[in-house]
Amino acid sequence: MDFKYRLLTPGPTMIPEEVKLELSRDIIHHRKDRFKSIMRGLQPKLKTLFGTKEDVLILSSSGTGAMQAAVFNLFNPGEKVIVVEGGKFGKRWTEIAKKRSLKPVIIEVEWGEAVDPELVKDTIKKEKDIKGILVQASETSTGVLHPIKELGEITQKFDILLVVDGISAVGISPLPMDRWGVDCLITGSQKGLMLPPGLSLISLSEKAYNKALGVISSDFYFDLKKEKNKIKQGETAYTSPVALILGLNAIMDLFLSYGLENIYKKYWALTQMTRCGVSAIGLSCFAEKNYTWGLTSVRVPKNIDGKELLNKIASTFNLHLAGGQDHLKGKIIRIGHMGYVDMSDILFALNAIAWTLKKEYNFVIKEKDFLEQASTSYFDAKEQGYERYFS
Amino acid sequence: MDFKYRLLTPGPTMIPEEVKLELSRDIIHHRKDRFKSIMRGLQPKLKTLFGTKEDVLILSSSGTGAMQAAVFNLFNPGEKVIVVEGGKFGKRWTEIAKKRSLKPVIIEVEWGEAVDPELVKDTIKKEKDIKGILVQASETSTGVLHPIKELGEITQKFDILLVVDGISAVGISPLPMDRWGVDCLITGSQKGLMLPPGLSLISLSEKAYNKALGVISSDFYFDLKKEKNKIKQGETAYTSPVALILGLNAIMDLFLSYGLENIYKKYWALTQMTRCGVSAIGLSCFAEKNYTWGLTSVRVPKNIDGKELLNKIASTFNLHLAGGQDHLKGKIIRIGHMGYVDMSDILFALNAIAWTLKKEYNFVIKEKDFLEQASTSYFDAKEQGYERYFS
Repeated sequence: MDFKYRLLTPGPTMIPEEVKLELSRDIIHHRKDRFKSIMRGLQPKLKTLFGTKEDVLILSSSGTGAMQAAVFNLFNPGEKVIVVEGGKFGKRWTEIAKKRSLKPVIIEVEWGEAVDPELVKDTIKKEKDIKGILVQASETSTGVLHPIKELGEITQKFDILLVVDGISAVGISPLPMDRWGVDCLITGSQKGLMLPPGLSLISLSEKAYNKALGVISSDFYFDLKKEKNKIKQGETAYTSPVALILGLNAIMDLFLSYGLENIYKKYWALTQMTRCGVSAIGLSCFAEKNYTWGLTSVRVPKNIDGKELLNKIASTFNLHLAGGQDHLKGKIIRIGHMGYVDMSDILFALNAIAWTLKKEYNFVIKEKDFLEQASTSYFDAKEQGYERYFS
Repeated sequence: MDFKYRLLTPGPTMIPEEVKLELSRDIIHHRKDRFKSIMRGLQPKLKTLFGTKEDVLILSSSGTGAMQAAVFNLFNPGEKVIVVEGGKFGKRWTEIAKKRSLKPVIIEVEWGEAVDPELVKDTIKKEKDIKGILVQASETSTGVLHPIKELGEITQKFDILLVVDGISAVGISPLPMDRWGVDCLITGSQKGLMLPPGLSLISLSEKAYNKALGVISSDFYFDLKKEKNKIKQGETAYTSPVALILGLNAIMDLFLSYGLENIYKKYWALTQMTRCGVSAIGLSCFAEKNYTWGLTSVRVPKNIDGKELLNKIASTFNLHLAGGQDHLKGKIIRIGHMGYVDMSDILFALNAIAWTLKKEYNFVIKEKDFLEQASTSYFDAKEQGYERYFS
């Protein structure tokens, strides 16, 4: 009763009232007209979200399911793909590619940094027959935003598919699929879309779909050609996640009435606010330059165990942040500011982190007005906009 | 989408998830066993909340309905009652008393101050045949806590009923009915009980009930003798507010598992936090000494219109505070911290107020780390406890 439950992880996120109400509706049948008409109405909205003229396919799976769908439907065994490995989710691309018997050419990127497009260009030239690039837009494990726009400029010149995991980027920061030359874009429901987990979205460019026509997948469930035919009729190939789709429809209406630009601006401001607050507390951000907008990864001071810190924050404040993954376990904490989060949540999170560091670890807070500084940073960022990020 | 909807008024308040889920249940019938068994299980919980061994009656009405029920059931026309009038709700007692053709002896108290028990004692001695005292525990319009314990010490010596409107006090600050000698205690659902409006609770001491037996009410709907007979059978006299009662049961379980003492301690800490933050911003609290724990009334600087200030805060931050009432309109704002509110909400409210004053009115914030000071005050108050308030 002291503190409300607050989920500030990089997914799942909290859910707005409008979505909760939709999720509570009676289940309608996924092969009947009423549902199909909702599905058809959803397509233009999802196309706007993805920035594409192509169909956006709906899968009943987590985001990882959609990653598998991409790899298994777009590539034949033995084909060579570049995998950008700069975090746990980069590694996941490699694992899936191996399961499909592809030949992954791994570009290792130091965790916390973004891939250098020049290195990708060189690798394409050096390696022969690269058929695709598998990359995260936002690498959730490190808080890095990879340069998708620049990668698209490279792959458009070649017969190479740019396959982008946008799970923690779509609906959070700009990622216009067609304009940036992305051939396959993926997202999940529990991040920017403010829905419970269990639904994923995937769209293929014409180039990607044409490639898929020549691929025989070893996967029965994730069949994107079948899904593409079905979506034209307002259906999914197998049983649709009906409640989540109703929620998706509600959230898309909210998004579009508010304007995608304004949503990106909000996340940009929350990112600046968090980074400012973190610095003012006296901590440093893990991703220094190419940071993602849906979370902020923060280095934990050397003498402190990040996992213990998170447990203390959770038990005092009922505030749930994320820790580091793999070799970053205990070394970073990740503050999620994607989904249904606002500046009040971030103000509270910064205060909870600072309070716990001070009380439990005798950490000396750098700037005593760190909360006011963070708040000011939010409004400044809102006013200035994010154009400079993409310059 | 920028800011979540936040209701920090002195009722209605926001509602916890556990209550929302109960409110969504299918409606059961109010004359059937399943409902009656819930009603019977609820009585011991409500008795703990009220601090009484007497039945706590449930009315389908707002708090004002319960105020009427008290006056019409406890007093006969022509009887003399003292009314403590130190705000809008004190005035409401007078209006109801007049409607019942009582002879109200009004003790006018300056708005923002609490009644002096000595003055009440003197009035009882001076006036003949005072039959009751009508008073608020917490005067919501000014943010004042009247000295109920001290009034109880006085009335217990006389044949006088102490009738207490505890609408914005029950479940917020200590108000043990039997121990303090309260003869009639009232509350509403939309304040400390964290429920939607529409349900009120009322309990009568033995002394009050015996008085009621000799009163013939001119009111059909609010019949406390009928309700008292019905509650023994797990029923209400007329149709029960079923969903609200299910919600009440859920919130009582939450309260009792958490402990009433801890709930009071939380509100005490939120009060100290708010008052500290308000001072650090450079504003002053309206109720200086005898302040209530569920809201903080704040003087608006002379050159600023409080209503306009609230509108600006609402339109920028989606944060809804309350203004002043009657002659305090535009002169004070009221920050509600009763119900489902936590320190994060207060942190945000203080920031929103300060930001708006600064940006819109060039107000100079007194202490630049007002948020950190407020936060520290919360934890200090939690640690120290509230015993000193009642010393």
